[in-house]
Amino acid sequence: MNVNGKHYRTVWMEGTRVCMIDQNKLPFTFEIFSAQNHRETADAIRTMTVRGAGALGVAAAYGMAQAFLETRDPRNWEAARRTLEATRPTAQNLFYAIGRVYQKGTDSGPEAAVSEAVAISDEDASFSKAIGEHGAALIRDGMRLLTHCNAGWLAFADFGTVTAPMYRAQEQGKNLFVWVSETRPRAQGARLTAWELSNARVPYKIVADNAAALLMRRGEVDMVLVGCDRVAANGDVANKIGTLDRAILAKEFKLPFYVAAPLSTIDFTCPTGENIPIEERSPDEILYQTGLTREGKMEQVRVAAPDATAYNPAFDVTPARYITGLITPMGILPPHDVARLRDRIPRGP
Amino acid sequence: MNVNGKHYRTVWMEGTRVCMIDQNKLPFTFEIFSAQNHRETADAIRTMTVRGAGALGVAAAYGMAQAFLETRDPRNWEAARRTLEATRPTAQNLFYAIGRVYQKGTDSGPEAAVSEAVAISDEDASFSKAIGEHGAALIRDGMRLLTHCNAGWLAFADFGTVTAPMYRAQEQGKNLFVWVSETRPRAQGARLTAWELSNARVPYKIVADNAAALLMRRGEVDMVLVGCDRVAANGDVANKIGTLDRAILAKEFKLPFYVAAPLSTIDFTCPTGENIPIEERSPDEILYQTGLTREGKMEQVRVAAPDATAYNPAFDVTPARYITGLITPMGILPPHDVARLRDRIPRGP
Repeated sequence: MNVNGKHYRTVWMEGTRVCMIDQNKLPFTFEIFSAQNHRETADAIRTMTVRGAGALGVAAAYGMAQAFLETRDPRNWEAARRTLEATRPTAQNLFYAIGRVYQKGTDSGPEAAVSEAVAISDEDASFSKAIGEHGAALIRDGMRLLTHCNAGWLAFADFGTVTAPMYRAQEQGKNLFVWVSETRPRAQGARLTAWELSNARVPYKIVADNAAALLMRRGEVDMVLVGCDRVAANGDVANKIGTLDRAILAKEFKLPFYVAAPLSTIDFTCPTGENIPIEERSPDEILYQTGLTREGKMEQVRVAAPDATAYNPAFDVTPARYITGLITPMGILPPHDVARLRDRIPRGP
Repeated sequence: MNVNGKHYRTVWMEGTRVCMIDQNKLPFTFEIFSAQNHRETADAIRTMTVRGAGALGVAAAYGMAQAFLETRDPRNWEAARRTLEATRPTAQNLFYAIGRVYQKGTDSGPEAAVSEAVAISDEDASFSKAIGEHGAALIRDGMRLLTHCNAGWLAFADFGTVTAPMYRAQEQGKNLFVWVSETRPRAQGARLTAWELSNARVPYKIVADNAAALLMRRGEVDMVLVGCDRVAANGDVANKIGTLDRAILAKEFKLPFYVAAPLSTIDFTCPTGENIPIEERSPDEILYQTGLTREGKMEQVRVAAPDATAYNPAFDVTPARYITGLITPMGILPPHDVARLRDRIPRGP
């Protein structure tokens, strides 16, 4: 994606350094963090300097390649692998990417390991690009989209999943406008999606999460497009809290509701949405808000009543029956057809 | 309502002073503001030290009574009336209350003016209490309610409209639990409703506005209860942005959706919800948040991306067909029956 007119991927390699956009500093500061060795890359993953399914895999792949450049001793490669795998133990992409680079480096040496990491980054970007191509076909000139949370460029190597169709439609000369749900409590819409769309010069406005029904009732939304964290084998979708609300509202107002689904999110071992555990996060995410003061300092303020408590589920499950279609790199399909992809998804080592 | 074990009304009179809970300082500081004369009372109304339909009327009534205590010159009474009426020109209750006290003071002197203001406060409280009585009948032991925004005690002389049935049900020995929608952008749920329920020892938790569908789908909500800003003659209801979202979700999950409607909100001159104008407020309410720092200082922070813009409609309209019933001081009725109340509502001078 372009930032201030220059093209960036979310993570990339320069010589022996792994460079990445520091996502802890966005949207208030755009800074590149540069990891000098695989240990610094592992730290960056652990502290969420880089986050998002696709981007995590790419960062870990480059970290593994760094280890091959650092030493000729196979015991050190193995140790580096363990260090990198321990950073985010639930990230499926991470293990897949590390495994591929480790195999290649062991078989064919450091240069081949770097090439494999680059290949993983390119594949991730090309999958996002394919989602962009398929999704753009749904966007008619003049359409007003509503999105939620951030399934953008920053979560992948490039393009993103929800944002890719927007960028592609714009390249095709279509006018579009995006309503960006704030996405409380962590405000990924107001912070990350807004920042991305500003950079890509896609017209948008942030709205309170509460404004979805009003906008739909007034006829100001033509399509809802969201990402996903996991797709069950029956097509049920887990995504950021508030996704189900929008799916039900879209049904009430007879609006298409599409989910951009990178292949890494499809979980054939999970029969239905009922089997997806819902992460509960700290109530403090609701009771406090962090932002920039007028003096340019990051500050956390309490926004709720002093002795109030909160309940903070981070995701919800949208049953397949509310979903018009899944936009995958292999095309758009009804959610219950997701099982057909089982034999078509590339497998790791 | 009780605060720290002591009973308060939102506004009251002590000698010649009008006292009120300073709502600009809540929920972080509980302070009583004391207006020495009618000019200070008018200032307090203008600066929203007191806010909310019922509470505004009562404050203005006491301000008018102050003017009769201050001077025997009828020209000064007339000037005071104009000063008080100019504070919040769209508040229907204000004109009604000032008119009643002015008439009584002119006819029967200062003591009668004070008594009339007290009567207005008592009537407001008794209407809320009646809503509480009718609404409590809907609350079964063990119920979990979901509410939105703040139609509480602080917006009226006492009890509130949405909160009154909760307080009454609790007095009747019923257990209840309230999910409090944060209510972005101004967070009246997280700030005022949470503060009120804490004081009344009603068990509750704040949730992000995005969590409504998840809670309903899991069967953790038994009834939705909200307030309203205006009821049209056909039973359509304007209320805080996000009310329509909850009404549609309640329909999807077959949950009762009730609206507590004080008589002052029913507008027979407004045929349907389509005729209710929707106030648009500053985008800054979405882009910034105000709260208390760890050092105890009020601070405003930017929560959205630096160059982002926002759209901020403050209310939405819920069509009558989504509403199970209106809880009025005269009983619970289907929304389209609201027209029947036309001849039963007490009229001002």
